[in-house]
Amino acid sequence: MTKPADPIAGLRMPLSEAMETQRSIRRLSPDPVDDEIILRLIELGTKAPTGSNFQNWEFVVIKDQTLKARIGTLYEQAWKIYGRAGRALRKGDEAAARSMAAVEWQIEHFEEVPILIVACLRGSRAPFLPVPPVVAATYYGSIFPSIQNILLGARAMGLGAGIVTLPLWSTTRIRRLLKMPIAVLPCAILPVGWPIGRYGPTHRRPPGEITHLDTYGNMPWKT
Amino acid sequence: MTKPADPIAGLRMPLSEAMETQRSIRRLSPDPVDDEIILRLIELGTKAPTGSNFQNWEFVVIKDQTLKARIGTLYEQAWKIYGRAGRALRKGDEAAARSMAAVEWQIEHFEEVPILIVACLRGSRAPFLPVPPVVAATYYGSIFPSIQNILLGARAMGLGAGIVTLPLWSTTRIRRLLKMPIAVLPCAILPVGWPIGRYGPTHRRPPGEITHLDTYGNMPWKT
Repeated sequence: MTKPADPIAGLRMPLSEAMETQRSIRRLSPDPVDDEIILRLIELGTKAPTGSNFQNWEFVVIKDQTLKARIGTLYEQAWKIYGRAGRALRKGDEAAARSMAAVEWQIEHFEEVPILIVACLRGSRAPFLPVPPVVAATYYGSIFPSIQNILLGARAMGLGAGIVTLPLWSTTRIRRLLKMPIAVLPCAILPVGWPIGRYGPTHRRPPGEITHLDTYGNMPWKT
Repeated sequence: MTKPADPIAGLRMPLSEAMETQRSIRRLSPDPVDDEIILRLIELGTKAPTGSNFQNWEFVVIKDQTLKARIGTLYEQAWKIYGRAGRALRKGDEAAARSMAAVEWQIEHFEEVPILIVACLRGSRAPFLPVPPVVAATYYGSIFPSIQNILLGARAMGLGAGIVTLPLWSTTRIRRLLKMPIAVLPCAILPVGWPIGRYGPTHRRPPGEITHLDTYGNMPWKT
């Protein structure tokens, strides 16, 4: 774990370096994170685009130990089902196994995570109402760019962070815990803290292997 | 319009500067954009996180004039309904009026946009199947962080870009145009080109006005 002397100065990291060394960090130290840092991250989040520029995000910062423990319990409940399925599906995949071990570490230590940022959208969609994909894409497209700004900002400041959605399997329970009105939908939780693990380059397929020209299947940049 | 001498070197822009000066640029010059630049943007897109690290994005780059014109027609059809509703809803809102005028400019000039990047996810969700919010959030949360990387990269390189979803109102028609299988869902279109307009700081409410502590409505950072 390395906490930099001046984390906010880290935001001057070159854009490409921040992107190329971003990864989900799940093993976080319980050391506190200053309010100033969290608000700066959220400020950067608000710079991202939103559909029709509605700027309809809201953020709930959770520090309360009891709330963190309760959200951790929701996480664990969903993981018991989802994690078992995941292990069966990706048997023999070592990278997936490492990632699942990190998730399990995170669940066990969830109430020690210094900060949870719950990213929400005002103007909730009805939970089980079927909507055409374009509506859903426009809706979630108004919060995930903002979340990515927060994650990149965290990376540049030397903070560990990642996206967690499983604890939100019951929006009713989460809303009750956070006293959140029905008109606000929690979309993702970002656990934030000083990392025990390290950032570093990630491995991806070259862009030519996933890029088509004009029509699907026409891949002139594939080598 | 200013096309920098070495756009890729622009990616070393400080992270916070890129975020703080990002805005949707809709008025784009028809001047071509090099393949190298587009592939570098997509490469940066692939550095973003995906749910369970499935890396299930795909990108279709559109340069063909006829395809751009047809997608422009789909855009126009949706705008005729949506734009009229938007104008009625946000009457008297000057910023919204400016933004709507830019959208109309873009629709009129859609086939001149040098590059459209269609950001897609493999493992399509059924179009009208109701899913709980946590599933939808995890799904779209696997493509919009990637889209935000592309937009930030475009901004740092001096390219204009933005998110457009309206032309996707009929996934059937878009899939037919792009010969895309049902197992791939187009989530957003990013028109990319050298800007006629300028980037510059955006205006947002301070983070304390949209940030709650522990429970919704508890806003200690509001000034």
